[in-house]
Amino acid sequence: MKTQKTYAIGVDLGGTNTVFGIVDAQGTIVVQDSIKTQAYKTAEAFVEAGVACLRPLIEQVGGIANLAGMGIGAPNANYYSGAIETAPNIAWAHETIVPLAQMFSNQLSALDPQPSTPFSVRVTNDANAAAMGEMAYGVARGMKNFIVITLGTGVGSGIVINGQLVYGHDGFAGELGHVIMVRGKEGRSCGCGRTGCLETYCSATGVARTAREILANTDRPSLLRNKPADQIESLDVSIAAFQGDEVANEIFQFTGKMLGEACADFTAFSSPEAYIFFGGLCKAGDLIMKPIEESYNRAVMPIYRGKAKFLVSGLMNANAAVLGASALGWGK
Amino acid sequence: MKTQKTYAIGVDLGGTNTVFGIVDAQGTIVVQDSIKTQAYKTAEAFVEAGVACLRPLIEQVGGIANLAGMGIGAPNANYYSGAIETAPNIAWAHETIVPLAQMFSNQLSALDPQPSTPFSVRVTNDANAAAMGEMAYGVARGMKNFIVITLGTGVGSGIVINGQLVYGHDGFAGELGHVIMVRGKEGRSCGCGRTGCLETYCSATGVARTAREILANTDRPSLLRNKPADQIESLDVSIAAFQGDEVANEIFQFTGKMLGEACADFTAFSSPEAYIFFGGLCKAGDLIMKPIEESYNRAVMPIYRGKAKFLVSGLMNANAAVLGASALGWGK
Repeated sequence: MKTQKTYAIGVDLGGTNTVFGIVDAQGTIVVQDSIKTQAYKTAEAFVEAGVACLRPLIEQVGGIANLAGMGIGAPNANYYSGAIETAPNIAWAHETIVPLAQMFSNQLSALDPQPSTPFSVRVTNDANAAAMGEMAYGVARGMKNFIVITLGTGVGSGIVINGQLVYGHDGFAGELGHVIMVRGKEGRSCGCGRTGCLETYCSATGVARTAREILANTDRPSLLRNKPADQIESLDVSIAAFQGDEVANEIFQFTGKMLGEACADFTAFSSPEAYIFFGGLCKAGDLIMKPIEESYNRAVMPIYRGKAKFLVSGLMNANAAVLGASALGWGK
Repeated sequence: MKTQKTYAIGVDLGGTNTVFGIVDAQGTIVVQDSIKTQAYKTAEAFVEAGVACLRPLIEQVGGIANLAGMGIGAPNANYYSGAIETAPNIAWAHETIVPLAQMFSNQLSALDPQPSTPFSVRVTNDANAAAMGEMAYGVARGMKNFIVITLGTGVGSGIVINGQLVYGHDGFAGELGHVIMVRGKEGRSCGCGRTGCLETYCSATGVARTAREILANTDRPSLLRNKPADQIESLDVSIAAFQGDEVANEIFQFTGKMLGEACADFTAFSSPEAYIFFGGLCKAGDLIMKPIEESYNRAVMPIYRGKAKFLVSGLMNANAAVLGASALGWGK
């Protein structure tokens, strides 16, 4: 007899913490707990600790039979293979392929006294999980075509077309932080081994890099000079900009212009209804969002002008990554 | 009673000719005829002439009841609205919106003595029709993720993701000829009103433009100097390149390099299994295809390297546009 499943597990696997949440059909995280991602030497030890963390949570919602499945948002996660593939920032997944979905599924299936099928576990990358979260519970509810752009340490993206996440042929589609914005030798060097990628300019790290460049190459006065240049973070730029600092505002203009031009190219690809921005940099609000939208409408091909919405994530304060990953747990 | 439909109509509406073909389920064009697209002052007159051209073809396959529907590939066609929207190169659709699908449907439904539902007519742009043709009858059979790039007067594209054509929110997605490859003032001016678009460099017209630039800015010897510069076409460059002309080969290297770099960015978006090139320029074969693939694998992000196939259309000699449009007629 098939039991009605009333919960799904969402997992936000980050470089520091891994958060496990159990989510109901309305998108409420009913219970959650976390472990330190890097406190384990092997993937096996990490999975074991994860299941130990999950077990009491699962008991609280009445046992594994009440759960539809589990979704994990993780760096370098491949939806098709269910694996984390050589994630540079996670010690136990560095230079190796970890079949995380299979490992969790084996352990969680064993919790079910009467398993009918293996417990469903799926993985996807952080930005794709954010896009699923926006579609299920955020500002993209009801949208079929949109792009989430995450502005964090890097620039990530989750692309939805015809109501489906775009995984591509190999499961690695949606790396919009790595389109080339500055071609040739003058492009900034990127962690991916190339130069000129969008994320070298428009991630939080890129914004700090822009700040350091301007401060080093000019003698213009700025509040940003109150801090040693190598300690400047994007948050400092936001604070200075809110205080009316001219250099800080110029940095947001520069960043927004490039993001707008990048989105203009993305529109020639999939013409989405909205671009949804996610991450700490968005807390600067209009200071960053206005330059993006203005630049976009200047840069985009005339037939698209004025059509796309530019939105800030509706899940900034909630646990978007856990919610988004849980959407995968429902089998969506 | 519902009759089994055995044929679909495919229409290739071009700037000069409009070809009407009736296609069977195996992808054979069983009968076809054409009219001159621009011989009519109004869209109404064009549609009337089209139906007059179609009527004997329809009789030859046993009447309208045997037809599943009609698909039209046309410039500036919007799949969602069924209209041709301000097509600059068609006099009766210039600066206006022509509801072509509705107009043909009305006329063709009237041919059915016992119409159950209105005769289905759908439109899409030329490059999307080419993509449907490749998927149904060409080199993309069995593929779910690929991009067709048409190298003609302009650069067009038909993008397939998860087995579906990408139309975007407004029906105008897939204009990859208009991503910006050269930012700033040094970009070539484009018909779309902007500068630096891919198609200003890599269309047949763009290739001829590159030739004229090199001939004007250098005194290098070249077979291309045998013709007045303003009469050089991309075919001349192909012929010269086949004869070992160094300048002509350099033009293909330049063109291929840029197409490869553009595809590297497209892969960061949808990571397709294959890029399929279509149009006269592809007749240069390896002279253009090798530089594209080499440039792509140099430029693309390491995780994608060596994965994508670079193919020439499988329908170059068949009537790809009619076949592709007919796929829309089956309701696919």
